Amino acid sequence: MTKPLPIIIDTDPGQDDAVAILLALASPEIEVLGITAVAGNVPVALTEVNARKICELAGRPDIKVYAGAVQPMLRPLVTAEYLHGKTGMDGPTLPAPTMPLQTQYAVDYIIDTLMAREAGTVTLATLGPLTNIALALVQEPRIAPRIKQIVAMGGGYFEGGNVTPAAEFNIYVDPQAARMVFESGIPITLIPLDCTHQALTTAKRVAAFRAMNNRSGQATAALLDFFERFDEQKYGTDGGPLHDPCVIAWLLKPELFQGRHVNVAIECESELTMGMTVVDWWRVTGRAPNATVIRSLDADGFFTLLTERIGKLP
Amino acid sequence: MTKPLPIIIDTDPGQDDAVAILLALASPEIEVLGITAVAGNVPVALTEVNARKICELAGRPDIKVYAGAVQPMLRPLVTAEYLHGKTGMDGPTLPAPTMPLQTQYAVDYIIDTLMAREAGTVTLATLGPLTNIALALVQEPRIAPRIKQIVAMGGGYFEGGNVTPAAEFNIYVDPQAARMVFESGIPITLIPLDCTHQALTTAKRVAAFRAMNNRSGQATAALLDFFERFDEQKYGTDGGPLHDPCVIAWLLKPELFQGRHVNVAIECESELTMGMTVVDWWRVTGRAPNATVIRSLDADGFFTLLTERIGKLP
Amino acid sequence: MTKPLPIIIDTDPGQDDAVAILLALASPEIEVLGITAVAGNVPVALTEVNARKICELAGRPDIKVYAGAVQPMLRPLVTAEYLHGKTGMDGPTLPAPTMPLQTQYAVDYIIDTLMAREAGTVTLATLGPLTNIALALVQEPRIAPRIKQIVAMGGGYFEGGNVTPAAEFNIYVDPQAARMVFESGIPITLIPLDCTHQALTTAKRVAAFRAMNNRSGQATAALLDFFERFDEQKYGTDGGPLHDPCVIAWLLKPELFQGRHVNVAIECESELTMGMTVVDWWRVTGRAPNATVIRSLDADGFFTLLTERIGKLP
Amino acid sequence: MTKPLPIIIDTDPGQDDAVAILLALASPEIEVLGITAVAGNVPVALTEVNARKICELAGRPDIKVYAGAVQPMLRPLVTAEYLHGKTGMDGPTLPAPTMPLQTQYAVDYIIDTLMAREAGTVTLATLGPLTNIALALVQEPRIAPRIKQIVAMGGGYFEGGNVTPAAEFNIYVDPQAARMVFESGIPITLIPLDCTHQALTTAKRVAAFRAMNNRSGQATAALLDFFERFDEQKYGTDGGPLHDPCVIAWLLKPELFQGRHVNVAIECESELTMGMTVVDWWRVTGRAPNATVIRSLDADGFFTLLTERIGKLP
Repeated sequence: MTKPLPIIIDTDPGQDDAVAILLALASPEIEVLGITAVAGNVPVALTEVNARKICELAGRPDIKVYAGAVQPMLRPLVTAEYLHGKTGMDGPTLPAPTMPLQTQYAVDYIIDTLMAREAGTVTLATLGPLTNIALALVQEPRIAPRIKQIVAMGGGYFEGGNVTPAAEFNIYVDPQAARMVFESGIPITLIPLDCTHQALTTAKRVAAFRAMNNRSGQATAALLDFFERFDEQKYGTDGGPLHDPCVIAWLLKPELFQGRHVNVAIECESELTMGMTVVDWWRVTGRAPNATVIRSLDADGFFTLLTERIGKLP
Repeated sequence: MTKPLPIIIDTDPGQDDAVAILLALASPEIEVLGITAVAGNVPVALTEVNARKICELAGRPDIKVYAGAVQPMLRPLVTAEYLHGKTGMDGPTLPAPTMPLQTQYAVDYIIDTLMAREAGTVTLATLGPLTNIALALVQEPRIAPRIKQIVAMGGGYFEGGNVTPAAEFNIYVDPQAARMVFESGIPITLIPLDCTHQALTTAKRVAAFRAMNNRSGQATAALLDFFERFDEQKYGTDGGPLHDPCVIAWLLKPELFQGRHVNVAIECESELTMGMTVVDWWRVTGRAPNATVIRSLDADGFFTLLTERIGKLP
Repeated sequence: MTKPLPIIIDTDPGQDDAVAILLALASPEIEVLGITAVAGNVPVALTEVNARKICELAGRPDIKVYAGAVQPMLRPLVTAEYLHGKTGMDGPTLPAPTMPLQTQYAVDYIIDTLMAREAGTVTLATLGPLTNIALALVQEPRIAPRIKQIVAMGGGYFEGGNVTPAAEFNIYVDPQAARMVFESGIPITLIPLDCTHQALTTAKRVAAFRAMNNRSGQATAALLDFFERFDEQKYGTDGGPLHDPCVIAWLLKPELFQGRHVNVAIECESELTMGMTVVDWWRVTGRAPNATVIRSLDADGFFTLLTERIGKLP
Repeated sequence: MTKPLPIIIDTDPGQDDAVAILLALASPEIEVLGITAVAGNVPVALTEVNARKICELAGRPDIKVYAGAVQPMLRPLVTAEYLHGKTGMDGPTLPAPTMPLQTQYAVDYIIDTLMAREAGTVTLATLGPLTNIALALVQEPRIAPRIKQIVAMGGGYFEGGNVTPAAEFNIYVDPQAARMVFESGIPITLIPLDCTHQALTTAKRVAAFRAMNNRSGQATAALLDFFERFDEQKYGTDGGPLHDPCVIAWLLKPELFQGRHVNVAIECESELTMGMTVVDWWRVTGRAPNATVIRSLDADGFFTLLTERIGKLP
């Protein structure tokens, strides 16, 4: 058997972040070195608690969870309670976590891990604003060439944005951090709205989780029920897009995804287009490719994978 | 019979502009008051000549053609010979025009016409950068409420841009002019790439023009043959998008088009996203709707109309 | 005797503009070809009237006065009634003008004059926002090399701004126009606040006008009395700065002024510094010099000249 | 006797930083809690060494020196070897330091010190780019109300900038950090070029250090000899401006300085004016005062203080 892929999950749970964490913890191909929480969907004081709740739900209180940035690098924090609810993870009733929060600052943990581990081995799976990653790059630029890859949920091109007409939430919240990451030379796979809007939580797909006998399946159904309401109403679709689990699914089964290696530039100058991921899909600029941008997804394959794995959890 | 709709065509021909002019001149529902040339696809010294050539091709040397802005309001002129050829209208061999260029400056002509005619009666059909219109608004702001409507080819949202990943050519060339027009309060119908990329000049559709017995049909086939090369290669499609005639077609048969009345803001701050038409399709901003943005087209209906009308010309 | 210097005065009177016009009309070394009014201190509907009033005060109803831009190129008009009063020229009581306003648009007049006259002979003395000049450059770029020079009141460097901490009023009102002019290659002499703040209308200097027997002297005293109030209170000085007449004085006696040939760039990107004249006084950038920036003035010599000339008017 | 004022010196030595550190270490009114080095005049790998060299020169190897940010928050590091020499502290020959560099990251040290000490007691004396302070504010926003005050060398208004026509070096290197600090609500005293250009290291003043019998006086003379060359040549003055020691002198004898409590906004949008300290000296904006900006200095009093104190060191 191959050695599992060591990853750090940087996240702001978030219902879809939660499902992504469950998917990772349910998958033997992946070794979750640590989970670093960041401010995003809700403040970091909530996202770190949510991360610990999910680890305990998955029966993994041994996972190390770290709290990171309380705010973006430059801009005031924008949150999304309209989508995620007051706790950021409304839906299921999960007990307050008893596993401890690590005392180390998430940014220091990221740097220490990357400097201590063999170069080129650690993957960062980022599910929220890229603040922690960018602060680590500012503090210790030598980590950049040591990162195997970043797989990030964020941005959109053909789908436009969600929080503004031009920008997707994760990138919009901390565009300066995103720009730093995209200019860092680190190999990046970007999972934008163009992909995730194909991962719809249809009634039938959610029903599959509800039919499970385990608590993780029940909780997933409750997370999705809450999460899809906003986007169903906005877009008039059956189900909402299940963004973040696509990141983990790409690590497990990249063959479910199709994309193109192109240049992605992050807009940081104009308030109107702030946080836009400007994707040179047709290669009309001379800018060198710096990311593989995923445009399409085998949605049925994705949900089959997700259902199968969540079913194996407690 | 209803009185024909009086319009001024502001244009930078351009093969697709040429076909749009032919369509207008072939349609009794429309009265072309004048044609104002602007710098865009090629310099205005060429676009005004091209406009006159097309009028003569259509057997209408009586049409008044005016030369307008030689450059955008603020930015250096960017042209598109890679797409349109050296003359801007490469393809057919048309004789040098003998009809005269009007001596009045196009901007003054637009102002005089709008101030002289009954308020709310004149439509501006704009096929190029909006420089002439914006300069008229700066010089005489009182024209704004006198314009019935502007129907403009420009921009893109779900399709992204063409000249840059974020911007379509017409808006990119003079974003400040576009912003002024979109903030003017004038009723606007915007025909963006999202629509025009559905109007593909397939081999079969072009063949219909080639099969005509009139010189206008032959010239149209030659224009389209040249024009489609670039986009066919870029997008790998059968035929290229026939942008500008959609503007005239919308005036003739709006039922061929579907769109949404939303806010469109023009990006003028950041070089990365310069000239982007930021369309609030999902109404996530509080900005008031200022344009009807066309997203879909009955392409067959459009080409049926175009073929039928071009066939009636000399 | 040498032939008088042909100039067009572009102006937004304005008390200090008025005194500048008087100085020009009183000086045989100068031939005022025409006066073009622009929106600035007050709307153009007032500034053109004020210009005509001053011509009649000086006994020169033959001067041709043209109305130009009603608003800046891109930004909404900002006016300065707090400084100039409701009419823009509060202070003296002058009769409504009986001389006619020319019907030609000022921008067209500027272009026609420059294209008709021998290249390199006509000076533009600009006392307000540079909108008319920039619109002329957009409409007919070939005028640029035909202009002998522009002598402009505007900007500030060591003195900072007046309307904002970074910007002086004339440049702030239409920064895009100013940038176009400063990037045009036309020889420019800039009279900024650094110079004009030395031209203080002290009680003694104003008294010299009041002591005159002619109506122009009386009117000048009344103009200065009104005009100095605001700046006296703001800066706590004896008298206020007499900006615009410095432009005409420089044409008459450049030896009263000292400056440096340096690069001036106009800030148009950031609202915070919008309209700043970024003067590379110490030549720390590689940008080529494009203007002679005046920093010091022989104030007594200036007022001696002004008093002597105004005294010769009716 | 009053208890000495506890300060952290954040610095990028730099000859003038070095003299500032000497002044602080020579002054019983001040307790230097620690020195935090930052990238600025030269990279932080050099500035932290320089800081330790100066502590040893002053006979204070007990001072704790920490290394901080290796680069600005967002922009690439710009350094000033043209002014400071290759080491950043060219001039005297000082031995390599034997005192250790602390292992803690300077940003963490700043946060820990501020959170551990009584709120409102610790002063930050900042002599370089504000990167360390801003990163501390991002990581732990609760430090802001615990800082007694920041006294910062940086910016310029009536003097303009030095590294660009609009910006002074310290602010220019990390404008985003500066903006964060000036928007933090922390009481700030700003010592800009307007003040420091009055602190000229004339031949006579430098001679006073050279005449001392102690090694610190000799080293100071050597530092100043090297440091003044660039500015003497640029400005044609006798001596160069001695920037950073003004910060410490203000802590010791504020009566030597005069300023005004006004608003300071930091330009971060436009490359042309990037890093400008926009000082609302005449209060023409509605922006609330956030800093006391020093404009004038009793230069003789300043050098008397400096000479007296340096003379007491080893």
